[in-house]
Amino acid sequence: MKLRVRTYDVDASEPSVMIHDDDCIVLGVKENDRVKISGKSVWVSLVDRSDSVLERGEILIPNFYMGRYDINEGDEVEVTHSPKPDSVMYIRKKMDNKKLTKEEIYAIVNDILESKLSKIEVSAWLTSLYINGMDLDEIANFTNAMVDTGDRIDFTREPVFDFHSIGGVPGNKVTPIVVSIVAAAGLMLPKTSSRAISSACGTSDFVETFCNVELSAEQVKEISERVGGVLAWGGSMNLAPVDDIVIKVEHPLGINPRAQMLASIMSKKVAIGANNLLVDIPMGPGTKVPTLEKAREYVRDFTELGRILGMHIECAITYGDQPVGQAIGPNLEARECIRILEGEKHPASVVEKACDLAGIILEMGGIPDGATKARDILFSGQAHKKFLEIVEAQGGNPNLKADDLKPGQYVQEIVSVKSGYVHTIDNKMLVSIARAAGAPNDKGAGLLIMKKKGQRVEKGDVLMYIHSDNEAKGVRAKEMAIRFNPITIEGMLIERA
Amino acid sequence: MKLRVRTYDVDASEPSVMIHDDDCIVLGVKENDRVKISGKSVWVSLVDRSDSVLERGEILIPNFYMGRYDINEGDEVEVTHSPKPDSVMYIRKKMDNKKLTKEEIYAIVNDILESKLSKIEVSAWLTSLYINGMDLDEIANFTNAMVDTGDRIDFTREPVFDFHSIGGVPGNKVTPIVVSIVAAAGLMLPKTSSRAISSACGTSDFVETFCNVELSAEQVKEISERVGGVLAWGGSMNLAPVDDIVIKVEHPLGINPRAQMLASIMSKKVAIGANNLLVDIPMGPGTKVPTLEKAREYVRDFTELGRILGMHIECAITYGDQPVGQAIGPNLEARECIRILEGEKHPASVVEKACDLAGIILEMGGIPDGATKARDILFSGQAHKKFLEIVEAQGGNPNLKADDLKPGQYVQEIVSVKSGYVHTIDNKMLVSIARAAGAPNDKGAGLLIMKKKGQRVEKGDVLMYIHSDNEAKGVRAKEMAIRFNPITIEGMLIERA
Repeated sequence: MKLRVRTYDVDASEPSVMIHDDDCIVLGVKENDRVKISGKSVWVSLVDRSDSVLERGEILIPNFYMGRYDINEGDEVEVTHSPKPDSVMYIRKKMDNKKLTKEEIYAIVNDILESKLSKIEVSAWLTSLYINGMDLDEIANFTNAMVDTGDRIDFTREPVFDFHSIGGVPGNKVTPIVVSIVAAAGLMLPKTSSRAISSACGTSDFVETFCNVELSAEQVKEISERVGGVLAWGGSMNLAPVDDIVIKVEHPLGINPRAQMLASIMSKKVAIGANNLLVDIPMGPGTKVPTLEKAREYVRDFTELGRILGMHIECAITYGDQPVGQAIGPNLEARECIRILEGEKHPASVVEKACDLAGIILEMGGIPDGATKARDILFSGQAHKKFLEIVEAQGGNPNLKADDLKPGQYVQEIVSVKSGYVHTIDNKMLVSIARAAGAPNDKGAGLLIMKKKGQRVEKGDVLMYIHSDNEAKGVRAKEMAIRFNPITIEGMLIERA
Repeated sequence: MKLRVRTYDVDASEPSVMIHDDDCIVLGVKENDRVKISGKSVWVSLVDRSDSVLERGEILIPNFYMGRYDINEGDEVEVTHSPKPDSVMYIRKKMDNKKLTKEEIYAIVNDILESKLSKIEVSAWLTSLYINGMDLDEIANFTNAMVDTGDRIDFTREPVFDFHSIGGVPGNKVTPIVVSIVAAAGLMLPKTSSRAISSACGTSDFVETFCNVELSAEQVKEISERVGGVLAWGGSMNLAPVDDIVIKVEHPLGINPRAQMLASIMSKKVAIGANNLLVDIPMGPGTKVPTLEKAREYVRDFTELGRILGMHIECAITYGDQPVGQAIGPNLEARECIRILEGEKHPASVVEKACDLAGIILEMGGIPDGATKARDILFSGQAHKKFLEIVEAQGGNPNLKADDLKPGQYVQEIVSVKSGYVHTIDNKMLVSIARAAGAPNDKGAGLLIMKKKGQRVEKGDVLMYIHSDNEAKGVRAKEMAIRFNPITIEGMLIERA
């Protein structure tokens, strides 16, 4: 059927063309079906139907597609029903709990990236992965498929070190310290990080408070090779880009299937050319890894996956049952992190974690007694010097001071209603409170936790401060904190029956 | 946040409001999240984001919602981020293969119906049902939830008989014959049918060639109680309406999870008040029920489900390994069906199946020796008389003749290239060929199968005729038939190696 093109200006999360109901009937096209569109180029799109916003004989094509497929308003295109892509069959195969071949996995990844699979189909794919899983051979193919559908960085300097925290623990601001120590020791660590999805503050959310994180692949290469380290946002490069589409479907479902998680992490590392990778696995209730048994499963997965992919991988299981340090939120985390680079020894949990992780990487790089060496580099000021080089290379202030970073002006206190010892800290609840206060978008918003697990508390002591840039958000966060009580004191009634 | 309403006129398959990117950041709203909108009424909607089709401070609301929630262009509404509904948690529970409570199932069904769950979430739900399934208690609750979210028909005349074919076999045009026989015997059978989703011709697709099938609940009640039978399209009433939303998500995935299938069928039957139900289970390669073992599972499921729901259910396992009769496609099936009501004894497969099914229903209604009685009613012309009464009640011609229904004017012959016996007939391929010819939308389009399984064929004999209303479609269907060869002759080479 010949249809006349009209363009429309909508940023749909799922790009699709729109065709009149009556034309759809003639074409044999139902909702969520596809059509093949032949104009100057030939392509396939999902279809929406309407009987009100367009006339018979028209096809509405989003702006998004116009340039990509060389189409202009008023063009006449030939439109036919297009069968489901083969990848839908392969998704069915995973629903039936069968092992997928390399070709099948590549077809699925490719079709997700090219918008040939709808949100319905991507959701079925992720749900199948969540329920039926993948073995490590499949995950290795999945990883390579994600790498091959994006760009890669080829460093002329080798080897490439990298590390990754699988996340779930708030306040984990060790990345700039680790990168600075490792780079100061003469190794190269081109670190890419993410922004918060469901957390209160991703590494890029707080690094961008003091320098630019949106670097091109060329900038990442140049800065890393020259300075030894970089603190980039992974999303500004085209590394394993299919991940960004998948996350949008994972987010509403609240799932992160093991196969997808492993392939997402590893694909970014393969794409950046890492030869040596340290994986930080924070463990504890409320993290992604609640038990030691589960943590050890991850260790086995990563080690074996590294073997298949030809990458040397070590893992560190770390404490994740309460925040790392005191600060949660962009400016607060940046300040706490930079203070430690400036020589502050407190909070010890941040210093210890950063130096232990950096130490392992140094040893992977052939530097003996890594943990001691890492502390030497940090306490001697070498790491701070290297950090400021990185900040300057990323367009930040070379004379940056920790106290340049200001917490939000509105402060709420949360006070203990009894005396005792801190018994548990609810990570997820702290994240919700920090987000209610405005984190990560309001840079001053966040929490300062004044009492950690096992510490003595007297009635009336401040358990935490809530900072916000907006007073109403601060008040709302305080109400949540009082209602849900994320820091519990031993000796409290758990339940009154 | 206060936003100013603008309306837009789009028939989205997934209704959602649109908010400017910057406002979404302030609201803390990501793609596929929800907002609570407080104006004259308070409601929750999914959100799309844009930075081009609207200004900051605006909210675009589809026409669809304007009346429903008493909103006008230019209104100011209060918009806040709304957490996921609890039903998302219950979907997660099914992903984790746990049994759902009645309340949880009701919440999911209700939220699907009220557009509170996105396509992503409905897809995850169906995929979980496909993989993890439901037990019969859950399916009974699921059925009742689907019934309770729609209308019911309360007949003053009792008992209510019904029958249902679980489908998958083309050319199954027995419904008008069964209904006419049963009604002529004095029992009441208010039959609702569907249109084709992926098949070549649903019962409603061919019944509407000779009378109106879009009846209201009141018409179904009035005609059934007066005439004894009706041949209505189920979609024109509001019986278990959530099904229509679910089908749109099942269709692109090509799945029909057992739990969803059973609950869909049973909910329509409960809603119409059926006390006695006969389920036809066509069995054979290429149908939904490939083996006898699988068929017996369905028998157990339906019988037990009937017990829980308080409905008397019997099942008939029938042959589904080739089309019923010769005709596939709306006018062709209608003609073949009406000819039998007019006294024609051929094709025997149609006569036998219709009389056997009707016979079981008669016996369920206390009429002994049902199969013989059914044949008496058919061959004596009583069924034909009753059929014309039903047609007239549904606005059709009371003097309708089978030959009023004309096959498409363009005819393609498919000829055997060798002699032998018909070995297999590929149902799915026949359906694809009939659809390529234009069925079910082009009423004249379809197939006449001239040779069935086991029949002797001489080289040059016509295996089938392809009819079409459009010559190009007929030629395309012929090409498919030659290429894919749906009717194979014994003694042919299966492969030449």
